[in-house]
Amino acid sequence: MKNIILASTSTIHGSDFLEYLLDDLEDLFGAIDEVLFIPYARPNGVSHDDYTNKAQEAFTKIGLTLHGIHEHQDPQTALANAKGIFVGGGNTFVLVKALYEKGLMPILKERIISGMPYLGTSAGSNICGLSLGTTNDMPIVYPPSFSTLGVVPFNINPHYLDPDPKSTHMGETRETRIKEFHKFNDTTVIGLREGSFLRVWNNSIVLNGDLNARIFEPDEPAREVKTGTDLKIYLNK
Amino acid sequence: MKNIILASTSTIHGSDFLEYLLDDLEDLFGAIDEVLFIPYARPNGVSHDDYTNKAQEAFTKIGLTLHGIHEHQDPQTALANAKGIFVGGGNTFVLVKALYEKGLMPILKERIISGMPYLGTSAGSNICGLSLGTTNDMPIVYPPSFSTLGVVPFNINPHYLDPDPKSTHMGETRETRIKEFHKFNDTTVIGLREGSFLRVWNNSIVLNGDLNARIFEPDEPAREVKTGTDLKIYLNK
Repeated sequence: MKNIILASTSTIHGSDFLEYLLDDLEDLFGAIDEVLFIPYARPNGVSHDDYTNKAQEAFTKIGLTLHGIHEHQDPQTALANAKGIFVGGGNTFVLVKALYEKGLMPILKERIISGMPYLGTSAGSNICGLSLGTTNDMPIVYPPSFSTLGVVPFNINPHYLDPDPKSTHMGETRETRIKEFHKFNDTTVIGLREGSFLRVWNNSIVLNGDLNARIFEPDEPAREVKTGTDLKIYLNK
Repeated sequence: MKNIILASTSTIHGSDFLEYLLDDLEDLFGAIDEVLFIPYARPNGVSHDDYTNKAQEAFTKIGLTLHGIHEHQDPQTALANAKGIFVGGGNTFVLVKALYEKGLMPILKERIISGMPYLGTSAGSNICGLSLGTTNDMPIVYPPSFSTLGVVPFNINPHYLDPDPKSTHMGETRETRIKEFHKFNDTTVIGLREGSFLRVWNNSIVLNGDLNARIFEPDEPAREVKTGTDLKIYLNK
């Protein structure tokens, strides 16, 4: 039993924070009135309070109350009692380090697996994969492990970017980086373009949004999957 | 006493591997005939042999012989006896993990500080800073530490890219990522654009190449420094 949305990005160009996802968030969080927000990824180094206020603004539009986990004296208990969770984007290393140091990883995993509604955007989606090994973020802090929740049986690369054929830049393309990942890891990687999200419900993992996703497996050419595809085949891999 | 070239990239667009650097490499390695190559960063997952052959091709043009450190049974002794070193680019995490696991970090640091000529490109430049915290690479393996050689008193961001004002992509710009780094670290960061390199000679650290570099310090606006500038002021910071 799982009830999850994993989005490539919180925000699409020219739109407000979470705006493009609001209908789907009503579906995800339908039965509850209050969501616990985990602001630890701190995009641009924003404070926990400011990030929580920004998320609250969006959630207010669908009649949901949001509280930051940092407002609770005991984050483990707050997480154990949460009705639903939103983990926002930012820096994946900062997020993962905080989750480990506060002892939240196993509780979060158990809650997601037992069906608590979960929204992740960007870094918050990344941590639902098997490792943080396909984040785009800079390693600005050293987490005790790169292993993450593994509530989906693959890794996610959020904000997936296609190579620019006109570029003269010699730094690696995203596809090259993911192929390098596969020299050292067997995990399937889903490149989620901005505006795409995965809707996990029980054993189905359906690609949503206007765009296709790009799937990378070791020793195979990358391939495109159409929006609407159920990726549950990866559950048995 | 130091004698170092730290380049943003091994290759500039439309040119062969190391081609744009060959005159400066003759200056760097002038007095020696043989260079030890460290291929551990494995760009695109290339084998140590293939990477070494590629580097040898470039070094042949300036009359230098290159051997891969992987050809030696005891890499620590090979490094201790090397006349000069080239550490090629690729994945910084893979490189740093290998250097730690083979016990090469302290030896490499000691050799560079005592004046052995050193060339680093991309990941090979990154490791001369204080940490790998400003690499652009994906964390595809978990190194035992993010600390690096610290033979220059700042961090390098190689392949530095200016934001594209026309972009609709919502992933973080390079500048945003470096600013996030400064929420958690005090280290100065030098954004080295492709074609730029630092020439370290004793206590001078001169920016070379056609382009300016971008310097980031905590709590200060980023600023441009002109090619030809000596960055030795950072030695006393």
